[in-house]
Amino acid sequence: MGKRDEKAITSRSEDYSQWYQDIVLKAGLADYSPVKGCMVIRPLGMSLWENMQRALDGMFKETGHVNAYFPLFIPESFLKREAEHVEGFSPELAVVTHAGGKDLEESLVVRPTSETIMYEMYAKWIKSYRDLPLLINQWANVVRWEMRTRLFLRTTEFLWQEGHTAHATHDDSWDEVIRILDIYARFAEEWMAVPVHKGLKTDAEKFAGALKTTCIEGLMQDGKALQCGTSHDLGQNFSKAFEVKYQDENAEWRYCWQTSWGVSTRLIGALIMAHSDDQGLVLPPRLAPIQAAVVPIYRDDAGKEATLGAAGKLVQGLKDAGVSVTLDDRDTVSPGFKFNDWEMKGVPLRIEIGPRDVENGQCVLVPRVPTRALREKERRQKEFVSLDGASESVRDVLEAIQKALYDRALAFREEHSHDIDTYDAFREQTEKGGFIWAHWCGDPACEEKVKEDTKSTIRCLPFDERGEDGACILCGKPSERRVIWSKAY
Amino acid sequence: MGKRDEKAITSRSEDYSQWYQDIVLKAGLADYSPVKGCMVIRPLGMSLWENMQRALDGMFKETGHVNAYFPLFIPESFLKREAEHVEGFSPELAVVTHAGGKDLEESLVVRPTSETIMYEMYAKWIKSYRDLPLLINQWANVVRWEMRTRLFLRTTEFLWQEGHTAHATHDDSWDEVIRILDIYARFAEEWMAVPVHKGLKTDAEKFAGALKTTCIEGLMQDGKALQCGTSHDLGQNFSKAFEVKYQDENAEWRYCWQTSWGVSTRLIGALIMAHSDDQGLVLPPRLAPIQAAVVPIYRDDAGKEATLGAAGKLVQGLKDAGVSVTLDDRDTVSPGFKFNDWEMKGVPLRIEIGPRDVENGQCVLVPRVPTRALREKERRQKEFVSLDGASESVRDVLEAIQKALYDRALAFREEHSHDIDTYDAFREQTEKGGFIWAHWCGDPACEEKVKEDTKSTIRCLPFDERGEDGACILCGKPSERRVIWSKAY
Repeated sequence: MGKRDEKAITSRSEDYSQWYQDIVLKAGLADYSPVKGCMVIRPLGMSLWENMQRALDGMFKETGHVNAYFPLFIPESFLKREAEHVEGFSPELAVVTHAGGKDLEESLVVRPTSETIMYEMYAKWIKSYRDLPLLINQWANVVRWEMRTRLFLRTTEFLWQEGHTAHATHDDSWDEVIRILDIYARFAEEWMAVPVHKGLKTDAEKFAGALKTTCIEGLMQDGKALQCGTSHDLGQNFSKAFEVKYQDENAEWRYCWQTSWGVSTRLIGALIMAHSDDQGLVLPPRLAPIQAAVVPIYRDDAGKEATLGAAGKLVQGLKDAGVSVTLDDRDTVSPGFKFNDWEMKGVPLRIEIGPRDVENGQCVLVPRVPTRALREKERRQKEFVSLDGASESVRDVLEAIQKALYDRALAFREEHSHDIDTYDAFREQTEKGGFIWAHWCGDPACEEKVKEDTKSTIRCLPFDERGEDGACILCGKPSERRVIWSKAY
Repeated sequence: MGKRDEKAITSRSEDYSQWYQDIVLKAGLADYSPVKGCMVIRPLGMSLWENMQRALDGMFKETGHVNAYFPLFIPESFLKREAEHVEGFSPELAVVTHAGGKDLEESLVVRPTSETIMYEMYAKWIKSYRDLPLLINQWANVVRWEMRTRLFLRTTEFLWQEGHTAHATHDDSWDEVIRILDIYARFAEEWMAVPVHKGLKTDAEKFAGALKTTCIEGLMQDGKALQCGTSHDLGQNFSKAFEVKYQDENAEWRYCWQTSWGVSTRLIGALIMAHSDDQGLVLPPRLAPIQAAVVPIYRDDAGKEATLGAAGKLVQGLKDAGVSVTLDDRDTVSPGFKFNDWEMKGVPLRIEIGPRDVENGQCVLVPRVPTRALREKERRQKEFVSLDGASESVRDVLEAIQKALYDRALAFREEHSHDIDTYDAFREQTEKGGFIWAHWCGDPACEEKVKEDTKSTIRCLPFDERGEDGACILCGKPSERRVIWSKAY
């Protein structure tokens, strides 16, 4: 088996699930670990996560949030103080019963989320309306015991951020819920190039302990939905359970209004499934750890010298222009191998240069996915640009790739979004995949029955809905709006 | 009790340990959590850690290291594969015995350090000499069950980085050990302004499973030493236990040579104890989350308007110049309260501005600690500078503060370093504190006896030692070098 074969991945049409796993393993994003359900995030996956962190962290800080760090362990009794919360998380807990050579008096839960441990501290810190709003975020690992796991999408341990805020009024906390949802949507669309619908979860799908859960939902290439982030209105559920109170201007004690919100390494799964193809990973330039790979092509020593000289200068110029670029000067593998390798790893732009190019003062830009400019020139997948102006050309093409990815994902979503009005058509479309906009009467019983019948769930009550009278897809009772249904990860 | 009193801290001379705790709590660096031994890192402490992370991460990446993330949980059996390792860590382990509603077949340890789980993966990834060196770092939380804890210095859970590398030869791995030790020393001295000795640990003090441990050691204001970072030569101990092997150029299988190295949130404890004073926290400008606080001072509305206008411009100019600055325009507290508040929080530079200053086109710089330039002008603790050139003046003063802190800490260390040649003098000096340079024959029995007698340990066999013949401080046998002794955190 040659090197090319070792690297080959299953095609999406053959087996989407195997294709996904091949991409993750063969691009070097993550690996299975010896601990059931836990993954190892390999350097490419980690630098992708770091780029995501940096962008999100900047947005959080711009809107007044600060980072802190709370304990990994939570006393078991804390979780029980909020009834729905403990019910939601109990089946997934990992429990430390033994430490420092002794059995513990009270078992400690490895945090599945940190509402309880954080709000115990908030109760201590918040005294007056002057201490509000309290806007804290934490980057951390969390653990939810999962039986059926998939790299990035569903793992026992994952990395995430969890924001936890406290406010004086419900108006203030609701504004925060939406402020964060907007940040998540902006991040998904502008950085990940994944178009999302913002909306409200139904009661059946909301966070355990929340009044309301808002979310962003993306559509993957196999027609299934992926929840990309959630922002919860906790109301006063936790503040009452943990006595998170403040004295108002009149010295009256009042319970705080709280929010929590998070995104996780699951977003890496979303990135993969939204953009990648049968050649390997596809990454949007704004998040790609390496944006461009320069591959020199030559046949003899004279050609090598001229080419590497020019390639070195090109790389330096690109670095100076802020492009994250690498020079692939390996001489143990062929150019063709390198092309496949960088395609597999999702580098958005390949730059080829050979002795003839150096003579002509040019290099060749080959985007990982066709940009609109290239698509318009039929059958052309590459572009010759002058070495003099290469930095500017490269930056332009990277921007064009970012846009092309978003446009492609948006077009895919539009093609795969359907208004459906009969239950037969609903069943049929659910099998084909995509977002189904269908009427729902609001009864959890209908939601549950549809899920049983079709495995389709209500992804959200979209904020961008078109108010419209209709009849519930299941029971036929009056409905004032369509909601978005789909099978989901 | 007035606001000033609430904030007052115990003096160092009265009770050093209480002073330390007061600083941590009252500056808002950290807090005790409801989970025994675990701390909450509050926003000021967290942004300090983030600044440390950023600086170190940059140095690691410059030297070819990449980040990855490995599971929090380690199967109990893994730790047992390296005999010294399990013996060293067993008493401190937290153990998950129960997860997802069931008892686990094999208990999982919450990582106290990640050699074992990482090298299990390295064994899978490394195949050829072409895969070497493998240079991976991880930023993570770790857990070591501690009975007696102190915020930042010794906590059950802490944050750290752990680098783990694999090399083809022992020369290569030893170079890595020293490369990292040099990075740690440079970080301590250039960023933290804490002078350190680099050296080798004795066998009694080395890492459980290492051939050799190198370290950097700093001296705190109470005369006790603090180990600030360690870099371990693991030899082939772990590669043999975990079958981390590579095929060399001749297709022969060989065991890798490995290193591991780490620094933790303990460094925040070092920063506090090296520089802070009875007024509160003192932070070096290169790591301070807020480098300068502008405090406007006025008596009436006209003064307020003029002052806030000029202060706003000043702040914008400083931001543009890359200074991390805040404008303290609170009108609920007095300027005096603000002065104390920023002193407590360790902001390196206070900038005062009032209506008279605005008229004169100036502002007043008040460094948190006296710079050399100010010390030379007797009794002056502040400096008037022109508003026009304020950005440059501020940057100069911040640099001068950084240098003043280092110089002060170095002078303190030199004053508290003693060559000692008799055991009586040794005992006496140990009580007074400081670094004792004394001869040691190399026998672990002498090291152990001195520790029993005096609580002084060998901090390191310093690399900057002056080779010199002498007699062991305890047994009188010949010695070729002095080693550094001290009580330690």
